[in-house]
Amino acid sequence: MRNPQLNSNGELTHLLTVEGLPRAILNQILDTAESFVPLADREIKKVPLLRGKSVFNLFFENSTRTRTTFEIAAKRLSADVYNLNINASSASKGESLLDTINNLSAMQADLFVVRHASSGAPHLIAQHVAPHVHVINAGDGRHAHPTQGLLDMYTIRHYKKDFTKLTVAIVGDILHSRVARSDIHALTTLGVPEVRAIGPLTLLPSGLEQMGVRVFTDMAEGLKGVDVIIMLRLQNERMRGALLPSAQEYFKHYGLTQEKLALARPDAIVMHPGPMNRGVEIDSPVADGKQAVILNQVTFGIAVRMAVMSIVAGA
Amino acid sequence: MRNPQLNSNGELTHLLTVEGLPRAILNQILDTAESFVPLADREIKKVPLLRGKSVFNLFFENSTRTRTTFEIAAKRLSADVYNLNINASSASKGESLLDTINNLSAMQADLFVVRHASSGAPHLIAQHVAPHVHVINAGDGRHAHPTQGLLDMYTIRHYKKDFTKLTVAIVGDILHSRVARSDIHALTTLGVPEVRAIGPLTLLPSGLEQMGVRVFTDMAEGLKGVDVIIMLRLQNERMRGALLPSAQEYFKHYGLTQEKLALARPDAIVMHPGPMNRGVEIDSPVADGKQAVILNQVTFGIAVRMAVMSIVAGA
Amino acid sequence: MRNPQLNSNGELTHLLTVEGLPRAILNQILDTAESFVPLADREIKKVPLLRGKSVFNLFFENSTRTRTTFEIAAKRLSADVYNLNINASSASKGESLLDTINNLSAMQADLFVVRHASSGAPHLIAQHVAPHVHVINAGDGRHAHPTQGLLDMYTIRHYKKDFTKLTVAIVGDILHSRVARSDIHALTTLGVPEVRAIGPLTLLPSGLEQMGVRVFTDMAEGLKGVDVIIMLRLQNERMRGALLPSAQEYFKHYGLTQEKLALARPDAIVMHPGPMNRGVEIDSPVADGKQAVILNQVTFGIAVRMAVMSIVAGA
Repeated sequence: MRNPQLNSNGELTHLLTVEGLPRAILNQILDTAESFVPLADREIKKVPLLRGKSVFNLFFENSTRTRTTFEIAAKRLSADVYNLNINASSASKGESLLDTINNLSAMQADLFVVRHASSGAPHLIAQHVAPHVHVINAGDGRHAHPTQGLLDMYTIRHYKKDFTKLTVAIVGDILHSRVARSDIHALTTLGVPEVRAIGPLTLLPSGLEQMGVRVFTDMAEGLKGVDVIIMLRLQNERMRGALLPSAQEYFKHYGLTQEKLALARPDAIVMHPGPMNRGVEIDSPVADGKQAVILNQVTFGIAVRMAVMSIVAGA
Repeated sequence: MRNPQLNSNGELTHLLTVEGLPRAILNQILDTAESFVPLADREIKKVPLLRGKSVFNLFFENSTRTRTTFEIAAKRLSADVYNLNINASSASKGESLLDTINNLSAMQADLFVVRHASSGAPHLIAQHVAPHVHVINAGDGRHAHPTQGLLDMYTIRHYKKDFTKLTVAIVGDILHSRVARSDIHALTTLGVPEVRAIGPLTLLPSGLEQMGVRVFTDMAEGLKGVDVIIMLRLQNERMRGALLPSAQEYFKHYGLTQEKLALARPDAIVMHPGPMNRGVEIDSPVADGKQAVILNQVTFGIAVRMAVMSIVAGA
Repeated sequence: MRNPQLNSNGELTHLLTVEGLPRAILNQILDTAESFVPLADREIKKVPLLRGKSVFNLFFENSTRTRTTFEIAAKRLSADVYNLNINASSASKGESLLDTINNLSAMQADLFVVRHASSGAPHLIAQHVAPHVHVINAGDGRHAHPTQGLLDMYTIRHYKKDFTKLTVAIVGDILHSRVARSDIHALTTLGVPEVRAIGPLTLLPSGLEQMGVRVFTDMAEGLKGVDVIIMLRLQNERMRGALLPSAQEYFKHYGLTQEKLALARPDAIVMHPGPMNRGVEIDSPVADGKQAVILNQVTFGIAVRMAVMSIVAGA
């Protein structure tokens, strides 16, 4: 069975998940992104690569921030961008997802950026669109958030150069995080020898060991000697459920403070996908400290999304 | 009294309704649209006809799909597009419709695309705007939806060439459909010798015969020998009211199945304005069958809206 | 302490409030705006001054009209515009205002247009953004609405030429009006010898006299001999509170009728920031009369916003 993300020439035609993407494709994306980073310093931050193309931001789930990053990336590539909040429209009129997609395809879309609460929705869409239409997953349920995973890889490569000598720790609510899944797949594919997952048992999914991940419930132990710390956002709704006792309790055990950070390597970098809960999963002195590269992730994210869009649109 | 849609030279300056538009204008729109259709296959799908012009999508009633088609058409003409959801703003501050319009006109709008729940709102606006401002009706109450009517005509002409030999059936909730009204006027003007309306008595308006329409309550009888079938969307809210017994009952009598379709001419085309209720007014094998031209309608709709915008902006 | 709106060369780098802006800067804005006014009559209403720049409309408080005027101004300067309704996104996820701003800055924003219900929010943002990012206040709480104040000055200068011989009356709910504050500061700075505030005691803030304003509770007396009348919008919510008896009662005492207007100079102009409550603060014959310049204010407002954007982006 062919990888649904690649065309018959093995080129990336959709970005649905980092899982199963060959290392060469990951490197192609990171290299292409690198060529877009210097644009940010130019007077005119645009290139004409997608001029005349139509990019549709199909957000079945609201996320102003993620939508904006894709909108910026598309406009910097000179595409025309259409923002569609689908909850408020046809979905409520009882039209099926695929009828909605077929309709938008018939409007001569070139690229769909899809955010959906259901895992697998972008895959389903990619299976049904016409050959000239490309699909990028901007987050589906608990499944994947591949551009976030890729920008994390870009950031790590930027600061650490060589993936094959790193120890990377992912900390927090790994169970509900699509970012964690995307990161684990990408790190493994890029040759990171040691990936660690740190969190309370209730927030750790089963099967991590089979993915080659070392699991820690004790944060001090897990952070020892790591090069990269990826903090995850703790979603407030978890707190209200039975999974966690309280924000204070969580912070005490799994919040990243300067004391805990000192256990990592002195040149370790601290990452977070945002938005941060200061005082819950991360302490302010760390978030604003000189080891934090959280805002750089955002900047690199624009270049990575430009790279993905230009690669799939050229396939 | 002059036709409010035409200027003193008889040129189209607003598109408010298909009713009363001369055949020459309808043909001008269809011919212009035809010139835009090939754009879809070009690398850069844009022309500079409306460059530097400001198109305002004034949606007093939400419709993401219709708004998007106009946004695409305007951007392909290189216009700047502004999307205004008016419910959420001045309307709630008690400002009158005309004060809102005057304000937006003072911002040097060139073109208003207006969707409004009240029949006649686009007419009222067209009567009050400055001479350099043009108004396109994107659906007003139960009254008209002229660009949908025009794209239906474009689709029929594309597949059937000659209007003057056709039998066209419109099926379903004709009483509440602005599309049906626009279609009947356009078909009659373009010389279609036989237009049929098919539906339950509770969904057929009075006065159809005076418009030259043959009325059928029996679908099998109405479909016999037709060249074109225009299915209408059944709005869910009708079902809950007293007008209809149930979706199943409706489908049994007026849903388009392959069996019923077989009563039409073998080369009959099936149209639907979308969004479809599969299993209510149309059966999936018909919607996805080879006689269906439903997605082609959507594609042609972009070209038709580009045609209307470029014609009125040039008047 | 340096003026937070000026850079070390004394150039305008943020527009936060009219208060404290030197007369030379006000004149620079008005002169630049004047150069943009003729654009409105050109076939293509655009200039490439902000081409490739990213303007973010950050509206923490909804205002379709104000947002649209900034969007138009930015697009006429050829910028890329991103509309962010922040209520619906990160704010609800508990992220701090400054983290949101840092994130958007990291996306390489060039200009933030900020509307916020809290007085001082744009100042706070301006203090924290990177040096290449500029902030324009589009209304903060009761504090300031400087572009409205500047377009009022532009309008007065356009019709009256010389500020130094004018008597200007501001009428209505001065207590809650950010427009009134901005106007008073600008008028004073530009050398208007007599500024009057007219309204019921409950809607007049204390301290007006210290700002050099003459206070009137009797409208007939206050309007005598004035050159310019700036009517303020009466917000409906005031009416429901204890501050005012009723709309009818308010109109009787402070609504601008033709009778009251006759007390001003015969060539007096009537201004209003919109949206108007006809029959509350202003009578329809006045609003639509030949002394009203209300719609001209809107047109000039686009040029003034273009001026402010191009000046700060060049600083």
